[in-house]
Amino acid sequence: MIPHTDALERILAPLNATPTELLPLTEAAGRVAAHDLKARLQNPPADVSAMDGYAVISGFSPGTTLTLVGESRAGAPFHGQVTPGHCVRIFTGSLLPAGADAILIQENADQTGLSVVARERPRLGQFVRRAGQDFGHDDVVLHAGTRIGVRDIALLAASGHVWVRVHRKPRVAVLTTGDELAMSGDPLPPGGIVNTNGLMLAALIRAAGGEAVLLPPCPDDPEAIADTLRAQGTADLIVSVGGASVGAHDHIRAALGLAGFESDFWKIAMRPGKPLMHARRGPLACLGFPGNPVASLVCGIVFLVPALARLGGLHDTAIATETARLGASLPANDLRFDHLRATLTAGPDGVSVATPFPKQDSGMIRLMANADALILRDGHAPAAEAGSVCRIIRLSSLGL
Amino acid sequence: MIPHTDALERILAPLNATPTELLPLTEAAGRVAAHDLKARLQNPPADVSAMDGYAVISGFSPGTTLTLVGESRAGAPFHGQVTPGHCVRIFTGSLLPAGADAILIQENADQTGLSVVARERPRLGQFVRRAGQDFGHDDVVLHAGTRIGVRDIALLAASGHVWVRVHRKPRVAVLTTGDELAMSGDPLPPGGIVNTNGLMLAALIRAAGGEAVLLPPCPDDPEAIADTLRAQGTADLIVSVGGASVGAHDHIRAALGLAGFESDFWKIAMRPGKPLMHARRGPLACLGFPGNPVASLVCGIVFLVPALARLGGLHDTAIATETARLGASLPANDLRFDHLRATLTAGPDGVSVATPFPKQDSGMIRLMANADALILRDGHAPAAEAGSVCRIIRLSSLGL
Repeated sequence: MIPHTDALERILAPLNATPTELLPLTEAAGRVAAHDLKARLQNPPADVSAMDGYAVISGFSPGTTLTLVGESRAGAPFHGQVTPGHCVRIFTGSLLPAGADAILIQENADQTGLSVVARERPRLGQFVRRAGQDFGHDDVVLHAGTRIGVRDIALLAASGHVWVRVHRKPRVAVLTTGDELAMSGDPLPPGGIVNTNGLMLAALIRAAGGEAVLLPPCPDDPEAIADTLRAQGTADLIVSVGGASVGAHDHIRAALGLAGFESDFWKIAMRPGKPLMHARRGPLACLGFPGNPVASLVCGIVFLVPALARLGGLHDTAIATETARLGASLPANDLRFDHLRATLTAGPDGVSVATPFPKQDSGMIRLMANADALILRDGHAPAAEAGSVCRIIRLSSLGL
Repeated sequence: MIPHTDALERILAPLNATPTELLPLTEAAGRVAAHDLKARLQNPPADVSAMDGYAVISGFSPGTTLTLVGESRAGAPFHGQVTPGHCVRIFTGSLLPAGADAILIQENADQTGLSVVARERPRLGQFVRRAGQDFGHDDVVLHAGTRIGVRDIALLAASGHVWVRVHRKPRVAVLTTGDELAMSGDPLPPGGIVNTNGLMLAALIRAAGGEAVLLPPCPDDPEAIADTLRAQGTADLIVSVGGASVGAHDHIRAALGLAGFESDFWKIAMRPGKPLMHARRGPLACLGFPGNPVASLVCGIVFLVPALARLGGLHDTAIATETARLGASLPANDLRFDHLRATLTAGPDGVSVATPFPKQDSGMIRLMANADALILRDGHAPAAEAGSVCRIIRLSSLGL
């Protein structure tokens, strides 16, 4: 058994980001930028008004009457020059006319025909948004290795980008094995169960930005499994999922050997998820997950989500954790790093309260589905009182 | 001006959930269940072992030698009956054979050929997962009006569901208007700007579970806008986005009138986002957003995301808020409810620190893109010291 942190390092170290592809901005949300994007346009594009009012030359006294000589609207700027004693009607976001250096807001002006009486002394530059004050030409507006969010779409459009170079979605093949498994809707064999892991992991891979290839399930037959493994030439990663018994994992280890994969490790000091395997054949890695859906989910969060991040080109592969308070006391932990399924509620001091389910049996799929968080417990952690501080993974933060 | 909470109620009240459609479970992640889903299978399907070991009849003394009479593997149960003095090799998740009532774990047994010597006295029921202890037949495993997550896919598969009735994705038409706008990549008119709102709102709608229809932008011409509004027969909602000037909004109000929409309100006590409009024609609502991208985003979060939730069939339409501490002092607020763009950092006591950007100008698209949160400030809120408690919307919690 190796520590799960060592296991993660050994899984991530040899992984490389996928090649890039070009996408129109309309398709780029959620994808990872493959290079720094520099602004081709500045914002504001020129000096513009921050308010509705009148473009003026500052410095006159309250009570001064100005002559209205034109209008600057969005898309219809004023083309003349503002001179002392003159003003131009202007609207938020419209271009500041040449000569003007301040905005007299309409709330502080009285207009009658072409006469505008100022009720204040405008300061130099007031309510003017300076050209480029948001971003200037060549400013890096998005960094390589970051995920493009909804707001970045606005920023990239405003800075003149139409196309974005992104990393191709990592392609992960999911291979479930076990004589006992039936795909959802297919007839169940005697003593059999539904193949929940295949659909769950495919959904997890998609939620984490990957492309899932659900392979036809294999029986507990190393030759059949090896044949399927050999056929995965275009996957960036394989996840195999064993049956519920130790025997099934032996089949996968044998199959990996037959298919030319070299074993790295196959047991980690973690709960649930002890029988995690890692094997490689050239650039292709195979992660072997336990067949228990709860253990499979936890391995998915701890190892597969970071692996997808690395393959997908994200610079930050760490899973975000948060501080919480325990909603119940916990006994001392054994040597395995633990992930307790828990609910979250708002605490009185603004810190969330994480209450572990009394039953942590990893066969409880419903409790897994109803959990809000995983409480993280170090190996050999001492007993902890209710109310004490703990670390958690908030499952919704991963879109899971 | 009406309070933004009243505005939200008036927008949501007349909205109905979209009709349902049937999806295979593989396509259901992220969708909203349209009816309660009851388990058709129970989990575990029968009494199964929670460990690798031997199925036994409890009650014998440590040192007892049992005779191995068979094996129960996943997918290959033992079909005989366990009798006193006998045992059956068993693996995690495999069916407990008839007669057996406990598991002797392999760590507490010594096997030599068909002889198994017990080193403990197994308790009745130990390491047995009872049939249905996770969920039983007809238990509701997923409630109508909840979003189907990755883990629910596992739960639905395990409980025997192959198809799911979900609400159709709400279809939102996005109509941007303004003579100054050019679509990303198109030539800019003089004094023009890129149409950032169209792409941003389309991405926001998709991130919130809707289907976005990006309409061709309209010039500042009420007749042209009205023609486009009249053509939106299949949309569940229209969002129009004004130009940067007040003039543009007048065009939209005129166009809404021409197209037979009845105005509900058109100014709210909120910043940014004061010139929010709401108009309806029969079952179809139109939300009129300000043209400023920052105001447009905030209106998207405060009104459009809840509207999509209601249209999409979610029972809970509220935007989640969190407690944080201010990272900087704030002056007293005026009458408008405020949404300050802010960064979040981890605080020493487990409460996040929300630090507002010094510049809250709603023209700052880059600051909007770089914000982690919106700090919520009530109208007329008194000045607040750094370190005091505040409410925030964490933008990543909305996938934005």
